[in-house]
Order: sequence, then structure tokens, then C-alpha cells
Amino acid sequence: MQVIVPFATQAPKTRLDAVLSASERQDFARAMLADVLAAVRATGHEPRVLATGPIEVGVPVTVDERPLSEAVNAQLEAHLEGRSDADAVAVVMADLALATPAALERLFTEAGEVVFVPGRGGGTNAFVTRHPAFRVDYHGTSYLDHREIARAVGATASVVDSFRLATDVDEPSDFVEVLCHGDGRSRDFLVDAGFALETTDGRVTASRHSR
Amino acid sequence: MQVIVPFATQAPKTRLDAVLSASERQDFARAMLADVLAAVRATGHEPRVLATGPIEVGVPVTVDERPLSEAVNAQLEAHLEGRSDADAVAVVMADLALATPAALERLFTEAGEVVFVPGRGGGTNAFVTRHPAFRVDYHGTSYLDHREIARAVGATASVVDSFRLATDVDEPSDFVEVLCHGDGRSRDFLVDAGFALETTDGRVTASRHSR
Repeated sequence: MQVIVPFATQAPKTRLDAVLSASERQDFARAMLADVLAAVRATGHEPRVLATGPIEVGVPVTVDERPLSEAVNAQLEAHLEGRSDADAVAVVMADLALATPAALERLFTEAGEVVFVPGRGGGTNAFVTRHPAFRVDYHGTSYLDHREIARAVGATASVVDSFRLATDVDEPSDFVEVLCHGDGRSRDFLVDAGFALETTDGRVTASRHSR
Repeated sequence: MQVIVPFATQAPKTRLDAVLSASERQDFARAMLADVLAAVRATGHEPRVLATGPIEVGVPVTVDERPLSEAVNAQLEAHLEGRSDADAVAVVMADLALATPAALERLFTEAGEVVFVPGRGGGTNAFVTRHPAFRVDYHGTSYLDHREIARAVGATASVVDSFRLATDVDEPSDFVEVLCHGDGRSRDFLVDAGFALETTDGRVTASRHSR
């Protein structure tokens, strides 16, 4: 199975700008990428990063400057189109800081011509495709759109129900999940940056304290 | 297995007050409860509602006016304490609008003296206990606290990784999940109330339109 991890090398994670500086956002995005790559490797697969620019991450990198959907579709076309012998392609987002080998194993082994992992907010956090005609469109409620695309091309679809893989880290409130459930570099980054869980009024937040 | 579903009959779901009236919040809370009860029943278990006041829901109801943790602990004590022949007790929150029989089945069949389903924001959305000394404390980051309680009483713990069961519906932003992934009364309620998915600026929200 080909496992592709798309990654934006420039100005990643802009929705975290209220709590992290530009260089911190870059470091945090790379910590999450490293966690995702380590989890993929622990399943026995060799990941490849599909990056918008050059980057050194210890695994093969393909650079494609185009927007996410175009870049991913180019990979799907190159790999699957017209080949009945092609193995499956998995696409796993780089900000799944809670990804574990066990959760990814469920994705990689689930039956279906297209297997989806929905993310919070209507997103598609990961998928596997074994169907030559399936393509992506990450805009908006991509999960619903991707189900529709799979239906339209006649692909059988299934879904992996995982909280860990549904949790992409986009906003400061998502830090709560990383602090609660993470155990890799992403969590270390947040702890080192002074973030800690705080309970106010029954709600749990991740607050930053200078050290 | 005993399956207990706690439910607050008075003024439920106050964090939805910006988008739903008091009577709508009550109706929505009951729609979610009905969805959870239906999903539990479809696994072959007979749920029991642990309510803060009298309520008619078509399943047995135990009324206990005390706060959630005390009421649940009273049930655990009554059922498990000192009995080596007692079967397991499951406690499933009433606002898991995306609960499916398949997701609950994973919880009910997972091995472990205590089996947890973490919720977003550090919560504990469901658990199964087979250990006589395990007790709950739902305040704050209850998931971490419950792991610690299990450790302290010497219970083996395991975790079920489910996005559907991790999604408790507390805030308007959670409506996106119900509209995307729900297929029961909770979703029907939101659709009938005029909520629909909307994509603005790449982010998906659930907006209310009068009909």
C-alpha cells in the first residue's frame, strides 16, 4: 500500500495564530507530521510526504506546489489509473496528532474500494482507495462530497470510526485532545511551550503559561 | 450487562441556549436520548434510564435527584459491590447522538475490567466496568481522572477509539456532526428546526434558517 501524507511547508496552521507564533506553528506542524509518519511506519508501511515545497523529514518527499486536492488527485491518477495490478493508496493528513499504529491499522485493513475516516467538522482526515476512478475534493464538507464521489464512480465505500483519526489539530481548543491523549512529539511541543489543561466552569481548556 | 443511561430531566443542554429555546433544548435532549436508547436496544441489551426526575421513555427509569457522579456511583455500588457473580455495568451518556449499534458493540465486547470511551474535551462519554471498586467523578478532565481511579483500584483498563461515541452534543458547533453523520431523531429534529450545513471560508457550520 502506498501511504501519502500531504504537508503544507509554508505558513501552516494559521488558525493557531492567536496562541502560537509563525515559527512555533511551523515547529508544531512538523512535530505532528513526525508523529503521523512514525505511526504509519509502525504499521509496517513506508510513508511518502507530498509537500508544497522542499522539506527534510527522513522519508521520501514529492514536491507539488498545487492546492491539496489537485496534488492528491495527480498522485491517485499516476498510481491507480488504468492499472488493475496497482495496490491501494492511502492518504493520511499530517495534523492527526493522536494517530496510533492501531488506529491506522484499522484504516489500512478495512474492506472497501474506498475507506473513509471522517474528521470533525465534515472533513476527510484519511482514506484508502483501491478504485481507479475515485478522486478528491477537499473543499467544504469533503466527507459528504467524497461519499458522493465514491457513489458516482460506483465504488463500494466503508468508514472507520476512530476518535484519534477524527481529531485533526486546527484550533487551540484541539490542544486539549493532544494533552489528554497524545504521547509523541506534538504533545511534548505543547508541554514545552507551556500549555496545560485547565478546568474552568466544568469545561476543559488548554491554557498557556509562561515558564 | 446492565446498561445505564443517565439523563437530566430539568433544563438540559444549557450551552445550546444561543440557538435553541428552553423547550427546544428539552425536545432535542429527548431526541438524543431516544437515539441512544434505540442504539443500545439494537445491540440486544435493555437500557435503563437514570433520571433526575420522572420521565416516560419506554424503558425502565430509576429516579435519583443527586448530581451525576453520586447517582452513577450509587448504581455501581448497588450492583457490583461485594458480588463476584454480578455482570458488567455500562454507563452511556444520553447525548451521544451519533451512537450506532456497531460502535456500542465495540464498547460492550472490549476486554478489560474497566473499558473507557473518551469524549472530546477530556470527558468520559461511556464506560463498562466489571470491577467492584471502580467509581466515577465526572468533574473536569474526567477521562484522565477515571484512568487514575482505575489504576488506583488495580483494575485493568482499556479504551475504545470511536469518533461516534466521542461526539457528545453540547454546543451549536456539534450540530455539524449530527447533520453530517446522524440518521435518527436528533438529526430529524435539527433539520425540522431549520439547521443546515454551511461552508464559509473553508469552515463548515450549522446555521439556522427560518422556514
